[in-house]
Amino acid sequence: MTITVHGQATSSCTARVLTTLFEKEVSDFYLQHVDLASSAHKQPDYLTLQPFGVIPVVQDGDLTLFESRAIIRYLALKYEGQGSPLYGRTPEERAKVEQWLEVESQNFHVAASTIVYQLVSRAKKGLAPEEDVVKATIEKLESILDVYEKQLSKSPFLAGDFFSLADLSHLPRTKSLMKSAKMPHLITSRKHVNDWWQRISTRPSWIKVTEMASGLQK
Amino acid sequence: MTITVHGQATSSCTARVLTTLFEKEVSDFYLQHVDLASSAHKQPDYLTLQPFGVIPVVQDGDLTLFESRAIIRYLALKYEGQGSPLYGRTPEERAKVEQWLEVESQNFHVAASTIVYQLVSRAKKGLAPEEDVVKATIEKLESILDVYEKQLSKSPFLAGDFFSLADLSHLPRTKSLMKSAKMPHLITSRKHVNDWWQRISTRPSWIKVTEMASGLQK
Repeated sequence: MTITVHGQATSSCTARVLTTLFEKEVSDFYLQHVDLASSAHKQPDYLTLQPFGVIPVVQDGDLTLFESRAIIRYLALKYEGQGSPLYGRTPEERAKVEQWLEVESQNFHVAASTIVYQLVSRAKKGLAPEEDVVKATIEKLESILDVYEKQLSKSPFLAGDFFSLADLSHLPRTKSLMKSAKMPHLITSRKHVNDWWQRISTRPSWIKVTEMASGLQK
Repeated sequence: MTITVHGQATSSCTARVLTTLFEKEVSDFYLQHVDLASSAHKQPDYLTLQPFGVIPVVQDGDLTLFESRAIIRYLALKYEGQGSPLYGRTPEERAKVEQWLEVESQNFHVAASTIVYQLVSRAKKGLAPEEDVVKATIEKLESILDVYEKQLSKSPFLAGDFFSLADLSHLPRTKSLMKSAKMPHLITSRKHVNDWWQRISTRPSWIKVTEMASGLQK
């Protein structure tokens, strides 16, 4: 049965879901474009799928599911037997995947998103960044990435010797931090973090998603 | 093998882990008190367990695991065959548990924690709340709880007809929102949210954890 993904390839959360589908070698899916510019995500029909009015939503048969990190967990389990073992191979590996996926969501994502909002989204609205917020958040992110540097000196990926949901979940926001917010040095100045970024951002799944996104932006 | 939980019963994140252990009828665990007042969580020994210097951490044999929502997922799976089915009984139920657990973490927790910080933590430091932040965050939380009200009019628990990790994860922060921040009306003014709160906050597991916490506070 075809999986429908309601979203936009340029959105971080949709990109997380699409990358998982490619990693799992699922080709039977359809991306239903949700036009944020015309507020399609705030219309009654869409709100019956996603009551908070955000993207993405996935429909798989009778199941309607939102929250990108819930969707990628669902896909990793449903397609456990094919593609990359995104949840690891043992209960202990899986626990470590969950741990670093939570670190991404509770720590990295919060800080990186604040920086992107301050330096990119506010500029689009003609607002200056709030300098004290930017400074404090960069310091916070530096300390998070120092922990990553130590962890990635011990293993090639966050949860161990395998590419997992935890690494994957960092891809979209790290890209916008490096490109849109023009802060590549946060990554490139740390040897092991930079090696990890090279390793994960050159995966065919992610290259496909960035191509889908840049096709939309042209 | 005895599970060691490094934390404090009064901490929201530790409480989440202890409630899961009680729901799973795991009695073979030991709570190793981490004295935050003396900065025990910032000492080198502790930082080898939890490099970000926060609580809790769980040790189970050779596995050391942090991030409370990763720990509760691990425990729900490890003890799948005993106690409450906190992850549901089918892949679809489990997907819905993940969805609402992410809503808790990304939406409810962020807003509720900001309110508790503004009205409780700042007062302890002699600082006044930032009124514009409080107002905007209460509005945000009201809109989140309106979605909960609709969802809970359709099923007794967030993910369906069973108490799950998603409900459980709301317990500590909702308690501090209602008691410490003195905002019970956010819950009690919504019929279905209030019924749900009565249903989940009277579970023996949670009562045990609140008793452990109030024993410490005496």
